[in-house]
Formats: sequence, C-alpha cells, structure tokens
Amino acid sequence: MSSDDFIVTPWHVEGEIDYDKLIKRFGTEKISNQLLDRIEKITGELHFMLRRGIFFSHRDMNFILNEYEKGNKFFLYTGRGPSGHTHIGHLVPWVFAKWLQDKFGTNMYFQLTDDEKFYSKQNLSLEDTKKFALENALDFIALGFKPEKTKIIIDSDNINTLYPIAAKVAKKINFSNTKAVFGFSNETNIGMIFYTAMQSAPCFIEDKPVLIPLGVDQDPHFRLTRDVAPKIGKLKPALIHNIMIPALQGPGGKMSASDENGTVYTTDTPEIVKKKIIKYAFSGGRPDIEEHRNKGGNPDIDVSFQYLRIFFEPDDNKLKQIYEDYKSGKMLTGELKSILIEKINGFLSVHQEKREKAKDQLDKFLLDNS
Amino acid sequence: MSSDDFIVTPWHVEGEIDYDKLIKRFGTEKISNQLLDRIEKITGELHFMLRRGIFFSHRDMNFILNEYEKGNKFFLYTGRGPSGHTHIGHLVPWVFAKWLQDKFGTNMYFQLTDDEKFYSKQNLSLEDTKKFALENALDFIALGFKPEKTKIIIDSDNINTLYPIAAKVAKKINFSNTKAVFGFSNETNIGMIFYTAMQSAPCFIEDKPVLIPLGVDQDPHFRLTRDVAPKIGKLKPALIHNIMIPALQGPGGKMSASDENGTVYTTDTPEIVKKKIIKYAFSGGRPDIEEHRNKGGNPDIDVSFQYLRIFFEPDDNKLKQIYEDYKSGKMLTGELKSILIEKINGFLSVHQEKREKAKDQLDKFLLDNS
Repeated sequence: MSSDDFIVTPWHVEGEIDYDKLIKRFGTEKISNQLLDRIEKITGELHFMLRRGIFFSHRDMNFILNEYEKGNKFFLYTGRGPSGHTHIGHLVPWVFAKWLQDKFGTNMYFQLTDDEKFYSKQNLSLEDTKKFALENALDFIALGFKPEKTKIIIDSDNINTLYPIAAKVAKKINFSNTKAVFGFSNETNIGMIFYTAMQSAPCFIEDKPVLIPLGVDQDPHFRLTRDVAPKIGKLKPALIHNIMIPALQGPGGKMSASDENGTVYTTDTPEIVKKKIIKYAFSGGRPDIEEHRNKGGNPDIDVSFQYLRIFFEPDDNKLKQIYEDYKSGKMLTGELKSILIEKINGFLSVHQEKREKAKDQLDKFLLDNS
Repeated sequence: MSSDDFIVTPWHVEGEIDYDKLIKRFGTEKISNQLLDRIEKITGELHFMLRRGIFFSHRDMNFILNEYEKGNKFFLYTGRGPSGHTHIGHLVPWVFAKWLQDKFGTNMYFQLTDDEKFYSKQNLSLEDTKKFALENALDFIALGFKPEKTKIIIDSDNINTLYPIAAKVAKKINFSNTKAVFGFSNETNIGMIFYTAMQSAPCFIEDKPVLIPLGVDQDPHFRLTRDVAPKIGKLKPALIHNIMIPALQGPGGKMSASDENGTVYTTDTPEIVKKKIIKYAFSGGRPDIEEHRNKGGNPDIDVSFQYLRIFFEPDDNKLKQIYEDYKSGKMLTGELKSILIEKINGFLSVHQEKREKAKDQLDKFLLDNS
C-alpha cells in the first residue's frame, strides 16, 4: 500500500494517512497560522494540540468566531461510538473539547452512539453497546466537564429527543448520498443507512451555532449534515478535526478499542501499561544499541514519542529535548518508553480516581429522558 | 391498463386489482372454507367481512388458531398512516379487529405512523402528521375497543419503546431487501428506508404470537418482518388481509384520504355525505331510466352497492335483495344511493357522538411514554 493509498471513513481507517491529501479529498480547510492567531487572541493561549497540529483541519471556524465576537455563543458537540472500553486515544478530542468549554464558556453535548455500534458490529448486542456507553461516560465525566453546562446523550435512552430531529434530517438524505459519502452498498443494513441522521441530530439540539471537535474520520457524517442544514432552515455545523491516534503497533490505522494489544485502556493498571508499552509500542530505534547511539532513532515514526506529542507531554521545551535526544541517539528506546510509561501512569492514577467519583455524578450528566 | 396491470404497495395502489393474482404475487394464502369453518367453530359466528371475502387472504392463521386452542393467546396489532382525516375505508380493518378482540379476548395495539407519513409526503411536517394521528385515534377509540386491553402507539411519541426493537429488526434488513419488497431506489430518503423496521416493532412488543388484520397493501412490510423474526429469536407475525376499499369515483385505486371528493370522512355532515354520494359515487346503472328498467344495473361495479357489501349492510338477506333488485332494474341508482346515504349517516351520527366522548378517553388509550 503506497502512501497515496489510504482509507478514512467513520468505520474503517487503513494505510498511512497523508493529512494534506485528506484535506483536499474531504474538502476541509487546513488550520492556518492566521486562524491560530485569532483563536489565541480570544483564549489568551493556544492549547498544545493546536500548536502541534494535532487539530489540523476545520470547517467554518471563522464563522464560529465571528458569531462569538458578535455575542452569539456557539455550543459544543462531540461523541463516541461505544464498541468497547475507553482507550487513551479517545480522550484526545474530549480533552480539547474541555479546553474549549473552559475558554469559551459554552454548553457541551456528548453523544454515545450505542445504536451505531450495534448496527455496525455483528457480534455486539444493543445491551452490550449500552453497557459500554455507560462505561465510556465515566471517562468523559472524569475529564472535569462542568455538570451545569454538559449533557451526555445515549442514543437509545434519549431517542425521544433525537428521533424527531433525526427524522427531519433523514427526509433530506437519500440512499445515493450515503453511498457517495460512506461507500454504502445494497448489502448495508437499514439501521446503518438511517444512522447518520442520528449523528446529525445533536447539531440542532439548540438553536445556536455548533462547533464539533472530532476525529477527522467522522467528517463524512457532518458533510451530509452541512448539506441538509439549510434545507431544514438550520445553521451548518462547524468542525475542527484531529488526526487519527496511532495504534501501539504503529502507523497504518487508528487505535482501535477492539484490539487489546494495540490499545491502552483508561482502566489499565500501571503494570499492564508498562507491559503493553514495552512489548508492543512501535519503536523508531535502531536494531542494536551501538547503531542507535551512532545513527540515532526516528521520533517521527516512534509511537511512544507520538503519544507524548499528541497527549502526554504538554511542555513544548521538554518535548523538543526528547525529540533531539532520541534523534541524536543520546536517548535509547527503553528510556523513551520509560518516560511515556511514567506519564501515562501518572495521568491514569489521577484519571482512575476521578472516574470512580464519576459514578456518583452520572445521573447529573445524563440528558433528561423526557 | 389491462386487468393484469395493477400495482399494490404500501404507498401506491393503482389499477383494477385481481385478488387471486395478488395472492400468488405476494405468496399469501386464500382464506378457505375450511379455515372459515374453523374460525366459526371458535367464535360461534362469522363476521360478515369474513363471509363476504372482504377479508380474503392470510398468512399463518392456522398457527394462530392452533396456539389459541393450546391456551397460548395471541395479541392483535394494526395501524394507520396519519396523512389526513379518517375516512370510512379506514374503519374496515379496525371494525374487524374490534370483533376479533371481543371474540378472542385479546390485547390490541394500534400504531399511528406519523413518522412514515412525514417521510413519504413531501408537503407534510412531522407536526402535521402528529396532529392527524391524534385525530385518527379518536375514530379508533369510538369503535369501542376495551381500554384495559388496548394501547395506541404514536411512533414519534413512543419512540423510546419502539426504537430498541426496530433497531434489532433493522440490523437484519439490507437495502437490497427493501428494493425487492418496496421497489425503493437510490433516490429514496433514508427515513423511508429505515421506516419498515418501525412498522415491524409492535409485532414484538409482547412475547406472544401476533395477528395483524390489515389492508393487503401493507403486506410487504410484514413479509420482511416474517423473514427477520427467526433471525432475532421471535415468532413470525400472522396476517389477515382485507381488500382495498374503492374510492367514490370507482375502482382503479384505493380510497385516499388526500382526495376530498373521492372520500367520505368520519366527520362529514349528513348534507356533505349526501352530496358526495349523489355527485361522485360511481354508478353501475344505465344512462337512462328506461334502459335501466329494461336491462338492469351492475352492482358488481357500483360503488354504492360495494360500500353496502363491505361495511354498511351486515344483513346478508337485505344485501341480496338489493343486489337482485338493482341487477334486475327494479331498483334505480338514485334509490340505491338513498339506501347508502341513510346507512352512512345513521352510522356517522352514532360514531360522531362516540368520537366526541373519545376525546376524554384518549389519555387512557395512549401507550405510556416511558
């Protein structure tokens, strides 16, 4: 598979993604320095995920900021398909959404699409995906969202809120549209075909502009939503896209909750984290120590370094030092992995405590089912 | 259009229907004399709609009766697509369902598919179809169903009950299936494509056999349901089909709620009923009185006679007398129409009173929305 040859859909990511090509393919806009300056002027600082291009692409961010400056505040919406336990890759857009909520003082909706994962996974029942939804909700709450400004939507629980909105969207989307955008075929089940309307629904839950921070693989859903919005008298949702988080075994796919060895779960113990990183994290190092010391490693393909860059080392100076030390050969792969293990376990020990407390907060966050 | 050339789908009925051919085309079973005897043995009498072949076809009626005789009671389910006010044609399967409820002592579910009519009618909003649903519910209640054994489902109101069931059905139906059964195309909207799963859902609302009395045009939905049922560990629904009720202007279509002149509404005044029947009811009479007296009329194509046969004259002897008198030329078209007008207005004066009282009973009948 050449670097040209990659696939990005909401249900399948394969190959080494060229993000500049993806921007052209999807028709989104690259986040420019000018846009970064504009965000920084409002927020006072740039989140490191913006500085480092983890969020790299958008649709209509300038519209969102124009409206904000006119006093017309947007709301935030993101979500998760609950096909398994939460892993650290899932947290990327959520942590960023939390930052946006804090900086812009906005309402936030988090959709757990138990129906989608039921439709798309042969071996999962609706009861399974609902169970995962409630598990995943704890990780979301643990990140510190404001309960008075944040609602968690579970599709099958909140269907009475979602369905009337989804129906209005569904009437404006035909099978051809879903074939073009998702590559559906005659063999696709009718739940999957309808589902995109369910993912559109929270965009219109408030009569305000909406900004959606999300993995770029989810963009196709909202391309449809953006086409439909004016036809039902609504505003187009704005998007800000993050890159796919690599699996432990390296690039060529996104981290998947169903591959246990490729994934660090938020509930993993320090020992398991250590074992997974040491055993599975794809290394940019040389085959032996002598060669590594002489020629240096390649942090750009090293998964441990990428995890630090994407999530676990917010300090640019520290990250730069690690980059240089690893590239020069001064830092060995084992040392780099030790840094990451310590960072992940530090994060998880706090996260797991908050996650326990989230069990008592769950009811407060769940959207009222009436 | 030859007599071979007719169309029967849930959304389009056209041409003169040959019901024997339709039975072959749909793969249903004709109601045999043996089956009628069996029903009569249990119920003590045959409803005139059974005696006259208004209900003419079925699927798995013998299974339903076998289970009933073993003490495993079925429940009843029928419904209506609320695209307008109720007309007298709608009442046919409901009146028959009421008879079944009385004779077999069963529970009954009545589904008002406001979402379906929203998806299928370009000019109707979900608010419009919901309004019609509540109107139609009054006519249903007015027929005297037992409140303690009868629940009315409105799709968009009871979606939290229906969606988890519909989702399980939807996972087992693909786009090809809906193309084959409904003739859907790439231009069909995804709400319509999904919708059949919503119409399946009430079949599985109780864990018992279900019998569905319904217009034969609705059979395709349940062909899909019957294919899916064993795949989700459920019993196949049984069906009993009525013929299409002709429009006032005559055969070649079913009575449609959206064609005002072709339709007698349950809320029409006696004067309007009289005017509609005199002006629009297709006549099997001769062009002038002398010819009619000599050669006689044709009751088999006369809509007034058909309405008496289908609904308004339960007495077989009286109906036979009218048939013979009209056929011989003794009875003129005006006299036949007078008989029908009197029958309809007699029925409607009682119905409209009960319909008014139904407004206070509505809450008791609506399925609990939780």
